[in-house]
Amino acid sequence: MTVLATTSPAIATAGIAGSSGYAGRELHRLLASHPRLAAAACTADTRALADSDIVFLALPHGASGEIASELASARVPVVDLSADLRAEWQYGLPELHRVAIAKSGAVANPGCYATAALLALAPLVAAGAIASHMVVDGKSGVSGAGKKPTDANTFCAAAEGIAPYSPVGHHHQLEIEQQLSAVAGAPQTVTFTPHLAPFTRGLLVTAYGRMTAPITQAQLDDLLLDHYHGEPFVSYSDGVRTQSLRGSNLCQIKAWADPERGAVVISAAIDNLVKGAAGQAIQNANLMLGFDEALGLPADASWL
Amino acid sequence: MTVLATTSPAIATAGIAGSSGYAGRELHRLLASHPRLAAAACTADTRALADSDIVFLALPHGASGEIASELASARVPVVDLSADLRAEWQYGLPELHRVAIAKSGAVANPGCYATAALLALAPLVAAGAIASHMVVDGKSGVSGAGKKPTDANTFCAAAEGIAPYSPVGHHHQLEIEQQLSAVAGAPQTVTFTPHLAPFTRGLLVTAYGRMTAPITQAQLDDLLLDHYHGEPFVSYSDGVRTQSLRGSNLCQIKAWADPERGAVVISAAIDNLVKGAAGQAIQNANLMLGFDEALGLPADASWL
Amino acid sequence: MTVLATTSPAIATAGIAGSSGYAGRELHRLLASHPRLAAAACTADTRALADSDIVFLALPHGASGEIASELASARVPVVDLSADLRAEWQYGLPELHRVAIAKSGAVANPGCYATAALLALAPLVAAGAIASHMVVDGKSGVSGAGKKPTDANTFCAAAEGIAPYSPVGHHHQLEIEQQLSAVAGAPQTVTFTPHLAPFTRGLLVTAYGRMTAPITQAQLDDLLLDHYHGEPFVSYSDGVRTQSLRGSNLCQIKAWADPERGAVVISAAIDNLVKGAAGQAIQNANLMLGFDEALGLPADASWL
Amino acid sequence: MTVLATTSPAIATAGIAGSSGYAGRELHRLLASHPRLAAAACTADTRALADSDIVFLALPHGASGEIASELASARVPVVDLSADLRAEWQYGLPELHRVAIAKSGAVANPGCYATAALLALAPLVAAGAIASHMVVDGKSGVSGAGKKPTDANTFCAAAEGIAPYSPVGHHHQLEIEQQLSAVAGAPQTVTFTPHLAPFTRGLLVTAYGRMTAPITQAQLDDLLLDHYHGEPFVSYSDGVRTQSLRGSNLCQIKAWADPERGAVVISAAIDNLVKGAAGQAIQNANLMLGFDEALGLPADASWL
Repeated sequence: MTVLATTSPAIATAGIAGSSGYAGRELHRLLASHPRLAAAACTADTRALADSDIVFLALPHGASGEIASELASARVPVVDLSADLRAEWQYGLPELHRVAIAKSGAVANPGCYATAALLALAPLVAAGAIASHMVVDGKSGVSGAGKKPTDANTFCAAAEGIAPYSPVGHHHQLEIEQQLSAVAGAPQTVTFTPHLAPFTRGLLVTAYGRMTAPITQAQLDDLLLDHYHGEPFVSYSDGVRTQSLRGSNLCQIKAWADPERGAVVISAAIDNLVKGAAGQAIQNANLMLGFDEALGLPADASWL
Repeated sequence: MTVLATTSPAIATAGIAGSSGYAGRELHRLLASHPRLAAAACTADTRALADSDIVFLALPHGASGEIASELASARVPVVDLSADLRAEWQYGLPELHRVAIAKSGAVANPGCYATAALLALAPLVAAGAIASHMVVDGKSGVSGAGKKPTDANTFCAAAEGIAPYSPVGHHHQLEIEQQLSAVAGAPQTVTFTPHLAPFTRGLLVTAYGRMTAPITQAQLDDLLLDHYHGEPFVSYSDGVRTQSLRGSNLCQIKAWADPERGAVVISAAIDNLVKGAAGQAIQNANLMLGFDEALGLPADASWL
Repeated sequence: MTVLATTSPAIATAGIAGSSGYAGRELHRLLASHPRLAAAACTADTRALADSDIVFLALPHGASGEIASELASARVPVVDLSADLRAEWQYGLPELHRVAIAKSGAVANPGCYATAALLALAPLVAAGAIASHMVVDGKSGVSGAGKKPTDANTFCAAAEGIAPYSPVGHHHQLEIEQQLSAVAGAPQTVTFTPHLAPFTRGLLVTAYGRMTAPITQAQLDDLLLDHYHGEPFVSYSDGVRTQSLRGSNLCQIKAWADPERGAVVISAAIDNLVKGAAGQAIQNANLMLGFDEALGLPADASWL
Repeated sequence: MTVLATTSPAIATAGIAGSSGYAGRELHRLLASHPRLAAAACTADTRALADSDIVFLALPHGASGEIASELASARVPVVDLSADLRAEWQYGLPELHRVAIAKSGAVANPGCYATAALLALAPLVAAGAIASHMVVDGKSGVSGAGKKPTDANTFCAAAEGIAPYSPVGHHHQLEIEQQLSAVAGAPQTVTFTPHLAPFTRGLLVTAYGRMTAPITQAQLDDLLLDHYHGEPFVSYSDGVRTQSLRGSNLCQIKAWADPERGAVVISAAIDNLVKGAAGQAIQNANLMLGFDEALGLPADASWL
């Protein structure tokens, strides 16, 4: 046996507004084993939150605006998990905006579908490898529909089958287009259809692009392996499946080339409540607080 | 109360080779309530089968060839449910080839993914409404993977998540392309990615095309409603979901137009073991025997 | 081919109050293929219902009382699917009360757990084979919890695990005790614990009794095979599982003897929406209208 | 922020024989975040294993005997996860045998059903509160059936329903009886029926006993709260459900009294792969190595 000596670093406090929803609950679950960030004030009382080192807003869509402004005035760093401020605040996808996030005090966490779609498509768009219109077919577990009981998220409605919803108009479509257009420096469009699939956690997108020039499978693999080399939370390999990522902040990606038809297919899997919500929020918080970006975040892909 | 008098029609006999697999079992289940067709010889003995009015081959892929030739020599009408003879025999999708099937003695039942993809895309291709390359994203329940236990179809491998498989090369891709090219009178290509989803029965494809000219949602709805008017087993409406089709021979279809992006999205849902296999085989047999095409086939979309 | 001639019998009309819940919906689904009973008035308007040959009340618990009295005054035969009138009306378990049901104009359909528990235990209690206190461990799919969205029946609450609910006090406990006491001619008690299990349809009880005298496996099998000989909707054999009964009115039963410990174990499986609700209601209606008890009711145990 | 200083303790090495099964895989997953125990040799080569500070045998049932003897000769502490040595070696249920386990070099990890059944029943048996024959109704997720694909553990066989298996003769029955008899100091018997339920992880037993003297709900609650006071991995409270325990070493317990009928009902939920296998093995190893018993083991009950 070997004996090691270390100095434990400081503990920062996190305020959480909105602990009752799935994302808020998952923030608590993850922070419980974070070595340097501890859930402190859990309330929607702005003054109580203002004493925290960082605040997570896990409120229903539409509810973040006012409290966010007040916290900004109080100069408290904020990560907002709703869709409300994604067009105004720093977009919080670390793999695209790591440096800007670290400097920002107001970060908007990406949507779950957008996270997976952007991690899949951004490298291909950045490389100019695919044409400016793409197809994104998304499949999400039922936790993505939120905690409030509705006719659509009862067990009997959602189990034992699959269905599309919100085709041609889901709000993540614009979010994906804005980010891809920024990456390309030119307008990009996507057709996006989400589907409700019968499992609790997990989200998969399979995206489709048209090659701008012939590309082989080996070239495609190299492009993505190079792009994501060293990323703590992106894994490029065969065997993409949401089951193995339960509770993990990892995104699994694999792409396939069909040069004969000029087609590229690329799948990306995440746990929608972790890399698609609470885990990514903590990844952003780690950057904003100057911590190691991966601190307290599991990158496990070995779940049964 | 009203008293009715009817004359019951003749009963034809069906031979079934391959009763132990899922498709063979489903043939038996459906024939048990068919008013004019009864399972008789259930064997792989060609001579026993040759006494039947019609034979269903529900054998593993690769096993139909020899027995099919012998039955053809004996002039027994055959519906083959495997992929073996789809390039040679009459392709058995009644909505595309009703008249030819009725005249044929040797019909190859379509693949389950091909059934849903063709019912979705053929009307748009026939109308010249979409460009010659299409994307087909398929999601199948686990019964589609067959009955033999494998590492991929155990409960623990397949439940509680979703995964792509066989991207860029599934044999249904060529089958879809051949049929769509015949419909168009010009080469058509598809990029097809199937996914294994955690339910027993049911199959959904969401297909994506590029408009050749601007088309509104109303025009798209009209095109498909007109095309499928009077079809006993195609229903065009909102609310496509595989759950409601359990045990039914119905295909539910809905399309969405995004003229701004020049995109058409179209979803089709079936029970993979019924319209995707045994039910469609009986629909073909009904046509071949001169029966009402819908005889003995439920078109129920009201399952919980 | 053989040609048969038959005379179709009269068609009776069924009124249904409460078509929107799961049981009401299932009544419609089953009546759609019933050869002699057709859903007519679907309303809660007593006058409209009074013109029917029989009325099914599929209303929420607590809502049947008034409408039931009015229909009784109008001398319309009624099957009530709620728990409201089980203590007052003829108890509608055909396997126990066939003759009385056929003579009755007011039948209370049993609860789903009670149906399975009584079909399992009544033969053993009637034979004096087990002691007067029994354990009933029930497992139900989520449709048993009704259609209204609640915190307990969302997909995320109910999927991917199992939980007990309402131990020591579920209202089916008294219902089971009353019926078993009547069978025995002496007070019988049960301890009943239901569990919510992650599937849509299906209900299993495993019941436990103490032998009053030693009994072998062969004797136990004989007792139950004899008792249920000729019953159209009870099957005694190995392989009890709810999956194979989807949509069927069948109850599968199997018992096991452990003479060394003086224990009897008996499992009974049903589709909770069919033999546990709508199918049994139609079985009762068939008896009340003088039809063949099994008319229009599938007894299929071959579902995948 | 506060700065803390600590001294990291020594790291012990673990050998694992049998890394490919579910239990072996889960050992690796859990050890990956254990602060003082690290997976080293992963092999069935006894010599390689003999260099470890402790060895886990996660081999198929029947395969542990020879390798266990060799390791015993080499005086390497061993935890065996199979059923092979439970009658000979120290039985490894820490809540019953903590002190003996800490002194032992050869510990047999309990079966998953036995773990839950014993944690539920032992306190009641120890207190003389229930009679000497008990009923144990078990429900396990499909991972309990092992990794090897069989006709019984395919998705299509196991999903969307529930079924009993191995009634009156499962090998865990004797294991439970032996331990309860030792607790009571007198022979105890159980009737045990396991059921296969459609989820991956999780196991629930609901056990039934007859009161030896009247006991109220408050007395029952007190008995169990007192018994488990301070236990790191037993939680007594309402809301027992396997879903919340995914990946956790916790056992949730709740009991209900029905004094009128003289009945006690008690449910216990665990993750079958953690407290029912790999987690409990690590808990035993912690004791054997002189570590804090809870080291590296999550006791989380907050999973969605």
